Amino acid sequence: MNAQPILKVVIHGASGRMGQALLRLAAQMPDIDVVAAVARRAPSQRVIDGVPHFAASELSGLPAFDVAIDFSLPDGVAALARLCAERGAALVCGTTGLDAEGEAALAALAGRAPLVWASNYSLGVAVLTDLVARAAALLADWDCDIVESHHIHKKDAPSGTALSLGQAAQGQGVQPRYASLRAGDIVGEHTVQFAGLGERIELVHRASNRDIFARGALEAARRLVARAPGRYSVAELLTA
Amino acid sequence: MNAQPILKVVIHGASGRMGQALLRLAAQMPDIDVVAAVARRAPSQRVIDGVPHFAASELSGLPAFDVAIDFSLPDGVAALARLCAERGAALVCGTTGLDAEGEAALAALAGRAPLVWASNYSLGVAVLTDLVARAAALLADWDCDIVESHHIHKKDAPSGTALSLGQAAQGQGVQPRYASLRAGDIVGEHTVQFAGLGERIELVHRASNRDIFARGALEAARRLVARAPGRYSVAELLTA
Amino acid sequence: MNAQPILKVVIHGASGRMGQALLRLAAQMPDIDVVAAVARRAPSQRVIDGVPHFAASELSGLPAFDVAIDFSLPDGVAALARLCAERGAALVCGTTGLDAEGEAALAALAGRAPLVWASNYSLGVAVLTDLVARAAALLADWDCDIVESHHIHKKDAPSGTALSLGQAAQGQGVQPRYASLRAGDIVGEHTVQFAGLGERIELVHRASNRDIFARGALEAARRLVARAPGRYSVAELLTA
Amino acid sequence: MNAQPILKVVIHGASGRMGQALLRLAAQMPDIDVVAAVARRAPSQRVIDGVPHFAASELSGLPAFDVAIDFSLPDGVAALARLCAERGAALVCGTTGLDAEGEAALAALAGRAPLVWASNYSLGVAVLTDLVARAAALLADWDCDIVESHHIHKKDAPSGTALSLGQAAQGQGVQPRYASLRAGDIVGEHTVQFAGLGERIELVHRASNRDIFARGALEAARRLVARAPGRYSVAELLTA
Repeated sequence: MNAQPILKVVIHGASGRMGQALLRLAAQMPDIDVVAAVARRAPSQRVIDGVPHFAASELSGLPAFDVAIDFSLPDGVAALARLCAERGAALVCGTTGLDAEGEAALAALAGRAPLVWASNYSLGVAVLTDLVARAAALLADWDCDIVESHHIHKKDAPSGTALSLGQAAQGQGVQPRYASLRAGDIVGEHTVQFAGLGERIELVHRASNRDIFARGALEAARRLVARAPGRYSVAELLTA
Repeated sequence: MNAQPILKVVIHGASGRMGQALLRLAAQMPDIDVVAAVARRAPSQRVIDGVPHFAASELSGLPAFDVAIDFSLPDGVAALARLCAERGAALVCGTTGLDAEGEAALAALAGRAPLVWASNYSLGVAVLTDLVARAAALLADWDCDIVESHHIHKKDAPSGTALSLGQAAQGQGVQPRYASLRAGDIVGEHTVQFAGLGERIELVHRASNRDIFARGALEAARRLVARAPGRYSVAELLTA
Repeated sequence: MNAQPILKVVIHGASGRMGQALLRLAAQMPDIDVVAAVARRAPSQRVIDGVPHFAASELSGLPAFDVAIDFSLPDGVAALARLCAERGAALVCGTTGLDAEGEAALAALAGRAPLVWASNYSLGVAVLTDLVARAAALLADWDCDIVESHHIHKKDAPSGTALSLGQAAQGQGVQPRYASLRAGDIVGEHTVQFAGLGERIELVHRASNRDIFARGALEAARRLVARAPGRYSVAELLTA
Repeated sequence: MNAQPILKVVIHGASGRMGQALLRLAAQMPDIDVVAAVARRAPSQRVIDGVPHFAASELSGLPAFDVAIDFSLPDGVAALARLCAERGAALVCGTTGLDAEGEAALAALAGRAPLVWASNYSLGVAVLTDLVARAAALLADWDCDIVESHHIHKKDAPSGTALSLGQAAQGQGVQPRYASLRAGDIVGEHTVQFAGLGERIELVHRASNRDIFARGALEAARRLVARAPGRYSVAELLTA
């Protein structure tokens, strides 16, 4: 018989927008079993749609798992990373604004298990990052500008994704400039422009639905568990 | 017989990039007769391609003309405007950064002859300005952003054209934000974006050839001479 | 006292995607009371979320209403239009592919009550239509192209919205050409390009959420009821 | 001492638009010496701006050269390719619509000397071609569309460049669809769109000046002469 291997997943940050999307999408995927959902506070109902829920203070009680997916707040990441290190479990981390303790815990985990941290898990952005590095290597003396547009509630600018795209260019010696627009309910658009004399290249990613981020994080989880310990980029995982 | 009326034109700022384009394009237009070209210093050769050349200090010696087209430097505009007032001639002015004396001379001229001042004489930008005002009136509670891209040698930002487009929106109570890109040899691009919930409108002008500015100034000259004294916008002239 | 007038609305085609969106959005609007929902077949449960449901065969039993909003199938439109005519009620119709009987019923209704038919009720598209007519009038000798992109399940091409935009240009003597892309799950994008020599204008509408169509239909209903009998365009209603 | 090696170049098709641009740009490049220009008919003046001119019938009399750059008509390519084979000289060929004899002569030359044939020599298009292949490999199940825009005088559609971009996608198993716009005096724009669910990538090249094609052909010539005999793509030369 040809039984499909089941990935045992913990969703950390279960009450947030990304956590909710992860729970909804994972429930439709036959190869994924969410064995626990962790929120800051445990809900009064401890099992929801078949998924056991835990409070952030109850990490030691989690059942066995292969990979944790974390979209939470900075102050809870270190504890989760230490748990993954103890258990030898992989970690997909999408929490931004980590403090020194969180970064140190990730660095320690990388010696014990595979982990990925990214501000954007969409396949399209992973591909765009790859293309930007390639273009920057070939167009080293062209001007590079990155323009990003997001909904008016987004506070940081440039976006984490814009900065990651910029790093891909900088890795090839190209120094981009940034511009940020905040308008309407735009989910997220990033344009990387390379301008020479008489010609230009524009590389654009348009997100129209937030589910792409949760779907990409789940796909990253699938690919991460097969890797050796170490810290990976989402581009390495999704575009390899 | 149906002889075409000939427009007698003075080109002021003849040695600049716009002045040269105006002389080249006007030479191909049968309804336009360039009766004089004025540069800061008169060239050693006083007649070039059939056009008499004058120094800026020799304005009083200019032959009779219907309209002056000026793309020069701020310090020469006042003298030209006073000459137009004396002669009752129209003025198409594209010089930016006017000082108080220049502005006062234009204001005085407006009581005697028709004049237009604009930072951009392309037909497309005139139309875009018209469309932006219309859109702003209909989309008063949408977010408005103006993004402009120009070659790396352009120093002012936002561009004068972006500011004019913004004023068209402000005239309808919409307050735009601006972003400026300086890259490669881009002739000039302006995008006015209106963003609502679940939908967006983008109004874009792309210039690929600087001749459009000279051609638009000549067309503005044709239309201006038929008008009553006063100060007109290029949109009023080109889109009426 | 300053009681808000309540609009009594019938949703015709209640089981379709647009019907469901209309019911969901109208439930949140204090000035709108959905007095009946009509589907091809009545659901077993006759009152859902407080809204009485009817089968298409039971139109004569509908309670009093001010305006019907119809996104259904062609064969049911004539009966609804006749009911509106009898009752003197307005009609917002978004059903495409009407047959001769349907068109005749709309024509008859226009003598008795105000009605609007459109393939697209978003405010943005109404504004874009207005801008296209204006641009075409000013740029009569420029080339005009309309490019539209929709999800791969859309079968007709060019889209009804593209054709309506084209008619706005044709009304000014400009003959556009059309190109259609079908890709991914794109909600709907329309670009109207005017190209001259050395410059171009692009007018773009991007829809990212289908609710804009339902919201626009409800707003059209609000504005329609104040009008005299006759047939209106959505641009006339939303952009006036 | 470190004298710069000088490349001896023949321009074949010297009277055409590309030939003229090549002569103009090469004259400004210190590392390039145009030793002969060949036109269908020799001009009455045999040396122009220091460059000896020849008729197409006088190929055997050409001085020694390292590389020929050909933008001519199909019927003259075979003779030039045979000359390059005899002399062991490289060939940069940009003539489109080659007949069987021309193709055979290129195939024979590839055994003797390095050659490149392309419909577009801009660096930007070479880079875009590279990026399209990479994106297609990573996004195999996304929809792919190629939209190209050119001036109204361009007769073939899709453009040769669009077809080359499409081949780059097809090489990775992705089958693109094409749309072509002909409007105004657009120099050339190519958009390759990849659309998934909830996200999209657009890869765009905009040419604003035809000199990029001549500059790219000269750069390809520089790089080609260092290669072993064989047929190369412009992407291999410019992006390696």
